[in-house]
Amino acid sequence: MTVEVIAVGTELLLGQTVNSNAAEIGRLLAESGLDHYHQVVVGDNEARLVAVIEHAVSRADAVILTGGIGPTQDDITREALAAAAGVGMVSDGAYADHLRAWWERRGREMPTANLRQAEHPEGAVLFENLKGTAPGLRLRIGDTWVFALPGVPQEMLPMLQDSVLPFLREAAGAGGVLISRMIRTWGESESRVAEFLGNLFESSQNPTMAFLASSGEIKVRLTARASDATAAAALLDPVEAEVRRRLGSLVFAVGDETVEHLVLRLCRERGWRLGTAESATGGMIAARLTAVPGASAVFVGSVIVYGEAQKTALLGVTPDLMEEYGVVGPETALAMAAGAARALDAEVVVAVTGSAGPTPQEAPPGTMVVVVHTPEEARARRFRMPGDRERVRTYTTTAALQSVRLALEGEWW
Amino acid sequence: MTVEVIAVGTELLLGQTVNSNAAEIGRLLAESGLDHYHQVVVGDNEARLVAVIEHAVSRADAVILTGGIGPTQDDITREALAAAAGVGMVSDGAYADHLRAWWERRGREMPTANLRQAEHPEGAVLFENLKGTAPGLRLRIGDTWVFALPGVPQEMLPMLQDSVLPFLREAAGAGGVLISRMIRTWGESESRVAEFLGNLFESSQNPTMAFLASSGEIKVRLTARASDATAAAALLDPVEAEVRRRLGSLVFAVGDETVEHLVLRLCRERGWRLGTAESATGGMIAARLTAVPGASAVFVGSVIVYGEAQKTALLGVTPDLMEEYGVVGPETALAMAAGAARALDAEVVVAVTGSAGPTPQEAPPGTMVVVVHTPEEARARRFRMPGDRERVRTYTTTAALQSVRLALEGEWW
Repeated sequence: MTVEVIAVGTELLLGQTVNSNAAEIGRLLAESGLDHYHQVVVGDNEARLVAVIEHAVSRADAVILTGGIGPTQDDITREALAAAAGVGMVSDGAYADHLRAWWERRGREMPTANLRQAEHPEGAVLFENLKGTAPGLRLRIGDTWVFALPGVPQEMLPMLQDSVLPFLREAAGAGGVLISRMIRTWGESESRVAEFLGNLFESSQNPTMAFLASSGEIKVRLTARASDATAAAALLDPVEAEVRRRLGSLVFAVGDETVEHLVLRLCRERGWRLGTAESATGGMIAARLTAVPGASAVFVGSVIVYGEAQKTALLGVTPDLMEEYGVVGPETALAMAAGAARALDAEVVVAVTGSAGPTPQEAPPGTMVVVVHTPEEARARRFRMPGDRERVRTYTTTAALQSVRLALEGEWW
Repeated sequence: MTVEVIAVGTELLLGQTVNSNAAEIGRLLAESGLDHYHQVVVGDNEARLVAVIEHAVSRADAVILTGGIGPTQDDITREALAAAAGVGMVSDGAYADHLRAWWERRGREMPTANLRQAEHPEGAVLFENLKGTAPGLRLRIGDTWVFALPGVPQEMLPMLQDSVLPFLREAAGAGGVLISRMIRTWGESESRVAEFLGNLFESSQNPTMAFLASSGEIKVRLTARASDATAAAALLDPVEAEVRRRLGSLVFAVGDETVEHLVLRLCRERGWRLGTAESATGGMIAARLTAVPGASAVFVGSVIVYGEAQKTALLGVTPDLMEEYGVVGPETALAMAAGAARALDAEVVVAVTGSAGPTPQEAPPGTMVVVVHTPEEARARRFRMPGDRERVRTYTTTAALQSVRLALEGEWW
């Protein structure tokens, strides 16, 4: 069963929205063992959308469209599907009533434009939208199942999971599964990691191996095709073990466990509370840690000190010290960490100071100092991050979290 | 001149990477006045990549590929292009020397795999990679210009801007321009905004109008096609004026100016320093403000208080007050803001407390209180945000920044 994904929207072509839906659908198709070879983006133009649907129907067993089913006049997916299927449009009275009730429950008057959402190509089956008002739909075109889902991710995902994937898994029969395992590393370049794994890669057919770089991490993805999850695991286990053996402490996690999950878990295991003291990263480390549900069991808070006066008032870093050693220096970062440990009453603190750019401030942009402070030890390390302000801050956030991880694993630099 | 974009990489199909390159390329093509109707994603499979290239060459005047030109063995774009063009592969001795010199300058030994990057389809012109080692290339297939660029955005972008876009603009001759103007609003739903603009939309041909929802903002995009930028502006100006008239203070900016830019500018104009006191957003407001280059002229710092002890120690919010009114309440948020204004020595503070979920904490997930504190006034407002933890935090961050904007514009709620 091959599935093609079509995202509809001129805003995607114009780059005003990033197509995160396609990534999410791709991930869920892979988990379901459904083959997925093509994703297409096309604008709000009916003739081109019809052509893209026809091309997809000619090469895939199922097609999932996202976007273009909202209430506004530029939403043309329903009409394009009717044209591709060669059927007319009909209005669904029951769904129109459902829409009116939806707005009524919220004590609001329904904009009349929303009635368009009860129209659909003849023969289509509608899916209720639990998070919004645009219904999804399923339609048969030739031998291909075609689904139209909303473009808003929060509305699209529940529909995909509840109404589309179970249907496709059923239609695919007892197909095999395609299972990926992601080995996450930090500390070496992609080409260096690939070199460590060279002959292992060359000989890999099942599982296959691929390398991905993002935000300073290099991920090694192993993908096995097998009859079921157990058989896939038996293929993946020995290769994962060999990858881990070759890469050593570069590997920090497998699967979805991010470095922030890992740091919170390592602190919790020791009964230590965690905080941050951030200058150049401006709260990004705290934001990543608190994105994890339940972070409050470990994470107590942060002091973001952008100004020098705030470094003194909140963290007790004296002007003398900053003058003697500089604001972007290991001594200042060590004092920030110690001050934050006191102020926040936390056992573990990660502190960052540096120059994020674009204007050089004391040190060239990209110069970053990270300190990890634990009840046992405190050490500073210096990084020189490449790229623009955003990249420098993102990579430094990752480096700070990785430094906490290494320190808590006893792998001090 | 129509341009098609093909992103190559199984990681995109598996959803392990989001195709942000396509969005960025789309934005720059539109700015260059080049038509762009299709984006395709295909995996690291040579036969399928060759078919996708051939299909693109059949319907577009130019094709830009991203990804699959790195040093690792799963990089197959060069070979697929040779197959689609019906030519052989050759090695470029000069580029091999360039690669060796690149690594030597960095005092590192070149992984041998990198030599593959000097190979290319016969007849291709190579572009130097200023940020990495994989060269880009240009190749003629039939009547179509085909470009292969790296997948890493920081390497792809300079090559696109320096070597691809000028070439395509030149090849397109004196074509017109397609200019978009984005009117950014906050505070009403997409269908409500569309209703305010209904007949304006219906009658719009040039400029066209579209609606985009993201992170709680609704954007109205006007797109005009004209002979040059001046003529496009003459088409856009009256429509923008009418949109602004109808939407009033819902409109906060036009173009790239984000709400964080605007907040920093409004503070700077008054000579006020800005800080944040965050509980549920955990540093996200500070992170967004400090992403703006030069934020340090206005933004002085933040106090992130996840634990109750930290709310007392750092912000002076007494346990009695939290017990009487609750942690998720206007009284606590007002006390947090006042405490942060003192601790940070800032005139303006935005404070947030709430329950981000998934576990209910005192209040149902999504319950959020935002306080804006200025030297003149301090007011609290309550939000009930929909969605999961990530969405609640993102929308609350936007709502907090928008509340500061409204307060500084004298539009208190």
